[in-house]
Amino acid sequence: MRQQTVNIAGAGLAGALLAVLLGRRGIAVNVFERRPDPRAHAADAGRSINLALAARGIRALEQAGLMEQVRPTLLPMRGRMIHDPEVSSTPRLLPYGQREAEVIYSVGRAALNRVLIEAAASLPQVRLHFDTSCTEVDVPSGSLRLVDNRTGVERTLSDSVTIAADGAGSAVRGSLARAGRVSVCELPLEHDYKEFHIPPRGGQYALYPEALHVWPRHGFMLIALPNPDRSFTATLFLPQTGDPGFDTLSGAAAVQEFFQRQFATAAALIPDLVAQFRNHPAGHLGTIHADPWACGAVLLLGDAAHAIVPFHGQGMNAAFEDCALLDALVAGAGPHGNWPEIFARFSRTRHGDTEAIAQMALENYAEMRSAVLDARFLRHQAWALQLERLHPTRFIPRYAMVMFHPEISYSEALRRGAVQQQILAQLDAQRAPGGSDHPAPLSAAELTRAQQLIAAQL
Amino acid sequence: MRQQTVNIAGAGLAGALLAVLLGRRGIAVNVFERRPDPRAHAADAGRSINLALAARGIRALEQAGLMEQVRPTLLPMRGRMIHDPEVSSTPRLLPYGQREAEVIYSVGRAALNRVLIEAAASLPQVRLHFDTSCTEVDVPSGSLRLVDNRTGVERTLSDSVTIAADGAGSAVRGSLARAGRVSVCELPLEHDYKEFHIPPRGGQYALYPEALHVWPRHGFMLIALPNPDRSFTATLFLPQTGDPGFDTLSGAAAVQEFFQRQFATAAALIPDLVAQFRNHPAGHLGTIHADPWACGAVLLLGDAAHAIVPFHGQGMNAAFEDCALLDALVAGAGPHGNWPEIFARFSRTRHGDTEAIAQMALENYAEMRSAVLDARFLRHQAWALQLERLHPTRFIPRYAMVMFHPEISYSEALRRGAVQQQILAQLDAQRAPGGSDHPAPLSAAELTRAQQLIAAQL
Repeated sequence: MRQQTVNIAGAGLAGALLAVLLGRRGIAVNVFERRPDPRAHAADAGRSINLALAARGIRALEQAGLMEQVRPTLLPMRGRMIHDPEVSSTPRLLPYGQREAEVIYSVGRAALNRVLIEAAASLPQVRLHFDTSCTEVDVPSGSLRLVDNRTGVERTLSDSVTIAADGAGSAVRGSLARAGRVSVCELPLEHDYKEFHIPPRGGQYALYPEALHVWPRHGFMLIALPNPDRSFTATLFLPQTGDPGFDTLSGAAAVQEFFQRQFATAAALIPDLVAQFRNHPAGHLGTIHADPWACGAVLLLGDAAHAIVPFHGQGMNAAFEDCALLDALVAGAGPHGNWPEIFARFSRTRHGDTEAIAQMALENYAEMRSAVLDARFLRHQAWALQLERLHPTRFIPRYAMVMFHPEISYSEALRRGAVQQQILAQLDAQRAPGGSDHPAPLSAAELTRAQQLIAAQL
Repeated sequence: MRQQTVNIAGAGLAGALLAVLLGRRGIAVNVFERRPDPRAHAADAGRSINLALAARGIRALEQAGLMEQVRPTLLPMRGRMIHDPEVSSTPRLLPYGQREAEVIYSVGRAALNRVLIEAAASLPQVRLHFDTSCTEVDVPSGSLRLVDNRTGVERTLSDSVTIAADGAGSAVRGSLARAGRVSVCELPLEHDYKEFHIPPRGGQYALYPEALHVWPRHGFMLIALPNPDRSFTATLFLPQTGDPGFDTLSGAAAVQEFFQRQFATAAALIPDLVAQFRNHPAGHLGTIHADPWACGAVLLLGDAAHAIVPFHGQGMNAAFEDCALLDALVAGAGPHGNWPEIFARFSRTRHGDTEAIAQMALENYAEMRSAVLDARFLRHQAWALQLERLHPTRFIPRYAMVMFHPEISYSEALRRGAVQQQILAQLDAQRAPGGSDHPAPLSAAELTRAQQLIAAQL
């Protein structure tokens, strides 16, 4: 096994991190990336995609020994800053957790990718091949078809051990699907997104920088994440069709009017709003389920295996956790382990967890755009934090399990979260009917009842 | 509506039939087909795909006034001719129905397609454009991108009403999926197929011509359908991996030995077996679910919307039924109907039925390759025919509902079939335990019991 070179399709976040992890184990790795070397090219100007790095991703970066290099690119976000529909109301911060350390980090995709690629390039075991697409794998022969995108020259590696980290539009997955080897379900969200740039004001952040800003409007929302250059990247999530919807929102006046009515405080911070709306493309979102991920000596990993919607900020974190798990399985298999077995074990071990985060990510969209405006949701969230203080290991709110507790798997978080919902609903049902919208914390009697429910159910 | 030209992607079986139906209603139709005109080119030599035409397809062809032209291409098949694993046993015919008219028809894809294209070409409303691919649609603008495959020249039709009948690998569906408009699940079967040519012997059919021949072997099977030139086309269905499986079956000796051991009577009829095995490609099978089919003025139809596995012989029949239904909805909408509404209604009306046939087609694989060897299945089949004779409108076996009763929808056939299974199982459970494998027909007392169950449940 140690003698066999591993070919990784994609030098994106997952592919580059995996190359570092495997390279450090002494495994020879080729990484093929269809785009040019980002170290030689400036990142796309005017396109700053930012992601949220949380504990699962951090743990994987630590496993690769990379957190020191990554840390300078990170901006902490302590919670969601909710901008209510009433323009006059003050934004309110809903903290992500109750401990100082329970924050997530805004990070630019390009900056993070560059750190990972530099780390991979520094390892003697890793060879990076840019401008080279992996277009096809063949099972069972194990051949991998490559195309040099500068010359158009094709070549084929035979008997390849291939890990496809080539993203949501994975060409490797496509070739396995066409060959009848993998079931693929692509379930688009009926909402698209569009990004906007919020420049600094007077050299400073135009909004409170240590938060993820949300303008929830029930059927749609605007969010904004901070960038290191003191700008924000705002993103509008809106149905493809309907009113409001991307299909009915056209013309400068309509766009201006829509933002003015729905997001006045944000609109005031985007000077060239209409031009940005016109020039920035609408992006599509969705969930991809693939099964199996492992076909002989070929493995799908990261977005190529399980792309999810971005509303839990877990796409990158899940992909990094994939890399860490695969690395651990490689270590566990020892020098005589064989790749098809490791890949099959990875697929079996991990599938339930990514299905769970796919579901939670979809649920979180409704939470971000609507539930945070709802008294019942806010009451339950306050109670959950109250219960966590009393039972810090028994009652960890689901959001915290996903974001801050990598020792709890996604599937376990989903399961325990459902029980938590039941407990909170039972506490709610026992309040006096008239007072059911009361925002007061749990009383001593209610806490006793909660304790009983937790003891019985969690 | 009548003024608007309809653009159909694909002049395959569904596209060509639909062009005839709409053209006859006075609607202007363009049909774009990526392949060359089959009237000017011989069909692929050595590749004779045959299909089974049954009542649903026949009804649609009659609606288009085409059965007279189609009839000369049809060969009746009265039932499945089962070739048991014991070489010495005589093949046995399991009739498809109990009436003379309850037969299905083997028909060559190329011959049938040619009849349909000639009929479409004869209508002044229909314009056929060969060597022209539909590569992309845009919603909501409704533009349709075309490529001339001889010159590479691209052009775009704006405000297009587009019906995608471009098959299981539909490019139009692909573009809708990439744009986040359609959910697509592609679920491959884990079994591939390979075709073999059984030439005539002494100028005559080498097997009984009025049957679909099956060599069921539990985990896999061989079938053969008659062609008008007195040859048969045989098809091996076998797992992709395993033993036996396409991946482990290599080398002349292994292929010869496998056929000799499993299909001796068929192997004797295929003189160049090993060469055919080597030269004929393995084909993939699977089920495609898409949702929605209707996106504004774009509709998916036939295999592009709902490709299924071939084991119920209903892929083409379902596509033809699609065409007939759409034609009826167009007629019902009148001259002022609008296409997006008709398409949406089609999608709503039809989805449940194609989901039902997708499921029944998968179930039929297990029936063909395994259940027909099973005493319980044969007993239940005999009982079902006995019950149908007594209650010809109440108890129609599921297979007969699907193949011979187009007035019963696929979903209704699925529902009633499940009740039938329960009734047959209840009758079985009441036989004396020792005699449970007894092949005798239902006794008078059992028939009375059956009558009660049918009255109560069906």
